[in-house]
Amino acid sequence: MTEAVAFVPGHVTGFFSAHQDDDPTKAGSRGAGVALADGVTVRLEPGDGVELNGEACDLEAVDRVLEALRSTARVVVETDLPLSAGFGVSGAAALGTALTANAVFDHGLSENELVTVAHGAEVQAETGLGDVVAQARGGFPVRLEPGAPAHGAMDGIPATRDVEYLTLGELSTADVLAGDTAELNEAGRRALSALVAEPTLETFMHVSRRFAREADLLTPEVQAVIEDVSGAGGEASMAMLGETVFALDAGLSDAGYDAERCSVSLAGAHLQ
Amino acid sequence: MTEAVAFVPGHVTGFFSAHQDDDPTKAGSRGAGVALADGVTVRLEPGDGVELNGEACDLEAVDRVLEALRSTARVVVETDLPLSAGFGVSGAAALGTALTANAVFDHGLSENELVTVAHGAEVQAETGLGDVVAQARGGFPVRLEPGAPAHGAMDGIPATRDVEYLTLGELSTADVLAGDTAELNEAGRRALSALVAEPTLETFMHVSRRFAREADLLTPEVQAVIEDVSGAGGEASMAMLGETVFALDAGLSDAGYDAERCSVSLAGAHLQ
Repeated sequence: MTEAVAFVPGHVTGFFSAHQDDDPTKAGSRGAGVALADGVTVRLEPGDGVELNGEACDLEAVDRVLEALRSTARVVVETDLPLSAGFGVSGAAALGTALTANAVFDHGLSENELVTVAHGAEVQAETGLGDVVAQARGGFPVRLEPGAPAHGAMDGIPATRDVEYLTLGELSTADVLAGDTAELNEAGRRALSALVAEPTLETFMHVSRRFAREADLLTPEVQAVIEDVSGAGGEASMAMLGETVFALDAGLSDAGYDAERCSVSLAGAHLQ
Repeated sequence: MTEAVAFVPGHVTGFFSAHQDDDPTKAGSRGAGVALADGVTVRLEPGDGVELNGEACDLEAVDRVLEALRSTARVVVETDLPLSAGFGVSGAAALGTALTANAVFDHGLSENELVTVAHGAEVQAETGLGDVVAQARGGFPVRLEPGAPAHGAMDGIPATRDVEYLTLGELSTADVLAGDTAELNEAGRRALSALVAEPTLETFMHVSRRFAREADLLTPEVQAVIEDVSGAGGEASMAMLGETVFALDAGLSDAGYDAERCSVSLAGAHLQ
């Protein structure tokens, strides 16, 4: 067995609506976000077990990908991104596992097929609904229709910009999605309509802020940071789902925060 | 008016089948190729006219994009790629014009919409059928269904590799497509079926060579170079449509040729 390494961008969702389906390749989310050049590296080695930043770790989506691909291997995941904070690390680990397992074991699957495997694993693990397809595309991905490539539909906001982010705490995706999502879904649909009518970064940030408010997901701390960025003339919103604020350009730094900065990942997920 | 700059990768097609349609967004090609980190830079400035590598130039696809977007501007195209040699320079110029005009004139169009405008312009100018959608995606794009995003369907070969290329002369896309394409289309369909069954780079190179032979497009010079690369243990085929040989890794250098080398463009077309 040889080794393989993949890079998968972090992905921050600005707004979304959740779409459940018994078929995990049809389940997913509509919405929009940004793929970050700060991301996740996945290395597949001989052995078994999953390691995250040097420690043994349970990542159900990764286990499910290995199972679907009938592959036995050790999966070494490394990232500087905050965990459980809205960066899609679990989806990235799943997609990186699919890409590397395909390379190492010569499964001969296409990009769409590998994205489908990782998306299905992530949906079944209940750790995300839209990160995998967005991480595969890169840029500022817009999920027009939910699901894996055969069912979903993607577009993108044509822009190349830096992004800053600041994490204040953790939030469980599964907990939010297990609650009553009717209002959230309604707000997500309105946000997508507005973005499709004018797919610019300014509209994206604007409708993302409105979504966070309408879906009642803002914590007081996140709201205060977003207001500070606006006050300094910047554009910020909340990462779905995490207690994280993201901003265009130097929006957070300009408001006096000590934030991480990176460029958008235009390439999306890929073998290294 | 501000300025904007876009980069669009060169694109080499390994095999294809042509699909004519009265609707230019439905016309296109099936096939597969590689997007190159060597590409085309398009700068939009105040003024009018099109400039290619410092000289005034007629590029019908570019004119059609400006017309479709009701934009008046000077389009400055620069590239180190050989012209009329199978690198999709006209498609790249059209797509770069769409991206930059959208940015400069705040047209508020999405990536899919801009790709649709550039694809339609390229089809109507009869300079290409599949380069634009492939250049937008990046990587090793597979065109499963012809046409712009609303009608076509894409996949990709999951790989990150260097590519070498060597141009021996020019070939007119319009002339080849104006001839009897029945045999070519049949060969293209067979190649796509084989690649979809096993979407690996090895299969891609193998079916591309068979396509070039079956479609009767090989010149003796191109054939001799491909055989030299095979003899040295490498993988090469012919760029469609140009008198150009492309190879994986250092295939051409290893066979003693003085070839250009670049990585695959994972990012695809983007604003800079």
